[in-house]
Amino acid sequence: MSSTAKRFRAGIVGGTGYTGAELLRLLVNHPEVEIACITSRSEDGTAVADMFPSLRGHLDLKFTVPDVARLAECDVVFFATPHNVAMRMMPELMAAGVRVIDLSADFRLRDADVWAHWYGETHTAPDLLAQAVYGLPERNREQIRQAQLVACPGCYPTAIQLGFLPLLEDSLIDPNQLIANAASGVSGAGRQAKIPMLMAEASDNFSAYGASGHRHLPEIEQGLADIANDPVSLTFVPHLLPMIRGIHATLYAPLRDPTLSLKNIQALFEERYADEPFVDVMPAGSHPQTRYTKGANYCRIALHRPLDRDVIVVLSVIDNLVKGASGQAVQNMNIMLGLPERAGLEGAALLP
Amino acid sequence: MSSTAKRFRAGIVGGTGYTGAELLRLLVNHPEVEIACITSRSEDGTAVADMFPSLRGHLDLKFTVPDVARLAECDVVFFATPHNVAMRMMPELMAAGVRVIDLSADFRLRDADVWAHWYGETHTAPDLLAQAVYGLPERNREQIRQAQLVACPGCYPTAIQLGFLPLLEDSLIDPNQLIANAASGVSGAGRQAKIPMLMAEASDNFSAYGASGHRHLPEIEQGLADIANDPVSLTFVPHLLPMIRGIHATLYAPLRDPTLSLKNIQALFEERYADEPFVDVMPAGSHPQTRYTKGANYCRIALHRPLDRDVIVVLSVIDNLVKGASGQAVQNMNIMLGLPERAGLEGAALLP
Amino acid sequence: MSSTAKRFRAGIVGGTGYTGAELLRLLVNHPEVEIACITSRSEDGTAVADMFPSLRGHLDLKFTVPDVARLAECDVVFFATPHNVAMRMMPELMAAGVRVIDLSADFRLRDADVWAHWYGETHTAPDLLAQAVYGLPERNREQIRQAQLVACPGCYPTAIQLGFLPLLEDSLIDPNQLIANAASGVSGAGRQAKIPMLMAEASDNFSAYGASGHRHLPEIEQGLADIANDPVSLTFVPHLLPMIRGIHATLYAPLRDPTLSLKNIQALFEERYADEPFVDVMPAGSHPQTRYTKGANYCRIALHRPLDRDVIVVLSVIDNLVKGASGQAVQNMNIMLGLPERAGLEGAALLP
Amino acid sequence: MSSTAKRFRAGIVGGTGYTGAELLRLLVNHPEVEIACITSRSEDGTAVADMFPSLRGHLDLKFTVPDVARLAECDVVFFATPHNVAMRMMPELMAAGVRVIDLSADFRLRDADVWAHWYGETHTAPDLLAQAVYGLPERNREQIRQAQLVACPGCYPTAIQLGFLPLLEDSLIDPNQLIANAASGVSGAGRQAKIPMLMAEASDNFSAYGASGHRHLPEIEQGLADIANDPVSLTFVPHLLPMIRGIHATLYAPLRDPTLSLKNIQALFEERYADEPFVDVMPAGSHPQTRYTKGANYCRIALHRPLDRDVIVVLSVIDNLVKGASGQAVQNMNIMLGLPERAGLEGAALLP
Repeated sequence: MSSTAKRFRAGIVGGTGYTGAELLRLLVNHPEVEIACITSRSEDGTAVADMFPSLRGHLDLKFTVPDVARLAECDVVFFATPHNVAMRMMPELMAAGVRVIDLSADFRLRDADVWAHWYGETHTAPDLLAQAVYGLPERNREQIRQAQLVACPGCYPTAIQLGFLPLLEDSLIDPNQLIANAASGVSGAGRQAKIPMLMAEASDNFSAYGASGHRHLPEIEQGLADIANDPVSLTFVPHLLPMIRGIHATLYAPLRDPTLSLKNIQALFEERYADEPFVDVMPAGSHPQTRYTKGANYCRIALHRPLDRDVIVVLSVIDNLVKGASGQAVQNMNIMLGLPERAGLEGAALLP
Repeated sequence: MSSTAKRFRAGIVGGTGYTGAELLRLLVNHPEVEIACITSRSEDGTAVADMFPSLRGHLDLKFTVPDVARLAECDVVFFATPHNVAMRMMPELMAAGVRVIDLSADFRLRDADVWAHWYGETHTAPDLLAQAVYGLPERNREQIRQAQLVACPGCYPTAIQLGFLPLLEDSLIDPNQLIANAASGVSGAGRQAKIPMLMAEASDNFSAYGASGHRHLPEIEQGLADIANDPVSLTFVPHLLPMIRGIHATLYAPLRDPTLSLKNIQALFEERYADEPFVDVMPAGSHPQTRYTKGANYCRIALHRPLDRDVIVVLSVIDNLVKGASGQAVQNMNIMLGLPERAGLEGAALLP
Repeated sequence: MSSTAKRFRAGIVGGTGYTGAELLRLLVNHPEVEIACITSRSEDGTAVADMFPSLRGHLDLKFTVPDVARLAECDVVFFATPHNVAMRMMPELMAAGVRVIDLSADFRLRDADVWAHWYGETHTAPDLLAQAVYGLPERNREQIRQAQLVACPGCYPTAIQLGFLPLLEDSLIDPNQLIANAASGVSGAGRQAKIPMLMAEASDNFSAYGASGHRHLPEIEQGLADIANDPVSLTFVPHLLPMIRGIHATLYAPLRDPTLSLKNIQALFEERYADEPFVDVMPAGSHPQTRYTKGANYCRIALHRPLDRDVIVVLSVIDNLVKGASGQAVQNMNIMLGLPERAGLEGAALLP
Repeated sequence: MSSTAKRFRAGIVGGTGYTGAELLRLLVNHPEVEIACITSRSEDGTAVADMFPSLRGHLDLKFTVPDVARLAECDVVFFATPHNVAMRMMPELMAAGVRVIDLSADFRLRDADVWAHWYGETHTAPDLLAQAVYGLPERNREQIRQAQLVACPGCYPTAIQLGFLPLLEDSLIDPNQLIANAASGVSGAGRQAKIPMLMAEASDNFSAYGASGHRHLPEIEQGLADIANDPVSLTFVPHLLPMIRGIHATLYAPLRDPTLSLKNIQALFEERYADEPFVDVMPAGSHPQTRYTKGANYCRIALHRPLDRDVIVVLSVIDNLVKGASGQAVQNMNIMLGLPERAGLEGAALLP
């Protein structure tokens, strides 16, 4: 445990879930940011390392009840909470001038009615939606730099948007026939006691879920429409994988111009992402494996054009807890604080 | 170990792989069929139960080298071999009048040139291709009953054809824009020592493979075209799941007539499969899990129409070693021998 | 679903857990016993196959609230409940003359005070403890045949007692220095929503639990003392395995007579278990794998004497839900009803 | 990829296995050491990041054939090879004055005859055995600092020695009745194509192996005897876990003085390891989980005294690829080069 004072102080609201634990893992070794406080109503007074013994020797901090005054002393506050928590504390925090990075779904959708439709509750801070910057650095880096409130993308939305992005920016595919077949490890369901997530239920097993309509769909369609500058229609079927971490998206789209070769499209992706520190365009024909990103902040992408027919297939993988949540949140924090974008995110994936 | 003589005798060529082991598991308790011989060049003389101790107490038989004369004394012979084995022994066995059920890929494709293209070798028994009946009972039950040579469908082809079948028979979907996103447990790769199939490589991981073109594609397209009575074009991307058994296919197709409701289509599936002993149409909106078929011969299917848009999504699951291989082979055997179709296949799936 | 009436009728109390589900799987194909009723307070009216879709096509029955009058019409009633349920209904059922097989812990210990100590509650039917026969057929077959109330052994106790039994019956080891290092798949923890049993917590992980003292210890020591006809002292450390089914016990004991060879001891085990349908003594030096029993009612055992030193090591594996629970319960039922002991238990283990 | 020159240069012989890959993962972010060369006969010319895509973006290096001259330019050379490789190159490297850290078994045993007995081959560099320092920093830190050749302990030996160490140093247990029941994830078997290590064989399964005698036994007994300053006799049974990383050792020993309380022993462990950066004594009665060390260099230990009887149980966990191999190798390197012992090893375990 380093005793050197660091330049910036971060607060975390809701540190007992998996995105909270992952934020802690990333921040305990961040060169410039220290964790000033971490809150949990249910675990007030518990040592963080008692709940997550993987942090023994790294962090000497206790959970405290959320307190706006204390959070307001931080340079940046993360929300690693279920939806419907951040929106309740946000007005006060915003008024206090704190910069906030919300990992929950509360500020991802611009339209409060759409939010209400998918989440079954009224949005309590609709006035703040317009101020929220959607935290996908590959699209919105400059706005993130200036933002007071950043809404981090969901895990599926990150993998899917980064996979379609160059194709839609250049109008190479038909935006009305997009398909995203995606699969997630079980950590995506959070650290909540539910029978379907028991190991005896979820391991050695595979199935789709939410196939008739999933909450991430409006976020993805909103993001893709922004990218395409046009409405899009996406069929999105998520699946539950018998493993802990990782998202794999298999994206299908009809090519508008069949004379465009896979080689051309590959070049386009490589160029588009050349300066992105965390997007890796693998050689065409590769099959990125989720474990190539386990514990690391990369999105790895590969392109296929099966039998040279007129469909392009994009394979896109991330670690749902890193680039799909806490790693991307740290990346956004680095951008907001003017730090090197890779600070605290240098770790290579754990393989095997 | 029952000592009662049974009515029929079966031979198995190539009993050291997973489909061979699964045939043994199913046949040791078959009420009417006994295992007369099981061959393996490499394991000649080894007790089967030494190789597969799960069979201790069930089977008292040794592997022997393949011998056509001995196999010819059986009522039925199964090939549970890699491709390129059955075709070499087939002319002699056919001439001897034995009935053969081939679980390998050798007689699935009607066109020897297509076979040669995908398998990289010349087919050595092209004359027999026309005699082979494609062993999907839900399509070809009557021909199977009469056949001397039945080519059992591949695992992916079984799950995908049964999922599209009612839609294509009734021309409800556009056959030129079919997508099959499928995933298989690792037992599908066979019992062969390969680094990518090591547990340290394949577990806690997920990826696509063969995304640019997979050997099962021509078989599936041939089968779907037969069903549709029209050419079809399928984009097929298989994936490797971190689990042992199970195939999950997620099928996408544009509906030709958007006024057709999900309820109508559900009724159509239920009617089409009403008399099928091993196809289970679950309620619309269900999410069949692969484990609902673990060790059992079912294909379980469910339908979705996401947000009532004009795409139909079919979810179809099987156990790749049972309905996708050895169970379907036993089902075909039962049909050929005039036995009840469920004989030896009564076991319920292992859950959890 | 067979419509033929069967000779015997079974009732199941508490069918929504894993031992209940496994009883159903085994009984739906039992040749002589049909499931007459299955109870659940929380799921009254739910179709069993809706809760366990693996049983679609096998069982057309709904959960009902427990009703003694209705249960009393059965030939045998199983309790697949947590502890503290069976003891409350037992007096009435016993009075009604029904034969009962209890899979819970309520009637395993003979001493109500010991029960109270380990389970933290007062035993409500201490008078019935003396009537309960401990359902380990390899020890108590004759008493089971006559019993009205059979208390099925726990999962760890089954694997451990069968492993030590021949050694203790013949006084070959020091009963005061026994060690049982055992490990169980997660299904042993039951179908209850608890965070430590989430797949994200329990998979890709391994640890001991209850190392300072576990509830199964008094049951095991009671059983071993009966076998040894002497007090025993056992150090028992259970562990949680990242897999669904299976128990592996590694047993250590100092040999009393070092001149006794491994070969002698092997012969002793083979002789002791020669007529046991479900105990398999593998060749000395083998390493039984839990999957050799997956879904099957065997206990497979192997012996080692490392470097010919004076310690004997016994490896003993079972499927915790079969020989460790529901399979052994069916075996006991077969004995009680005078049926062949293997009836309904013929299935070979699922491998791979 | 940092371009800043680092102070020290490391070479790796045999970089295509799991310990090689883990060395790379740890060293790419080491603040003071850069990877100068990495050898593989079979992969000469292959980019390391093509073999391990998890390193894309971290390492721009190709495998080369082993070349002593080039290795001799390094400050330190690691052997991440199977046994019987390091011993062949060692004389030349030692003569060249290079400092070597051997992760293989070649220099762990002091007695060449014992080595020959367990490895079935003659040791080709017996003269160098006396120069090798056994690389367990918690025992031999000062000798490691001076050593030219460090033999890193095996994975099981690390977990077991650290667990018994304080007890044996203080003669609290009977050294003739030690038992180590241990279990390892599959990565311990290396990156070699073998059927028993296939995912279809090793997952959802558990068994012992080498129960009659395992190669790590002489290393462990040699180490424990050094610690105890007395001969020891250990019964050691390793098991294979259905997971990738992690070793769990459950150690049993009779207490010499039963009046010594668990509290006393706990205090002793805490004192003994107070200054050790990578040994974590958890509160008495804890159950360390292997995942608390996943990807991190800790050994976490907890003590139990079941029912206050006269047996002490020590639970000891490590990540077999980190503290059990490559992490400990880096720790030794840091000691040898006079660097902070935690350099490059700051990462917290990945959880979940």
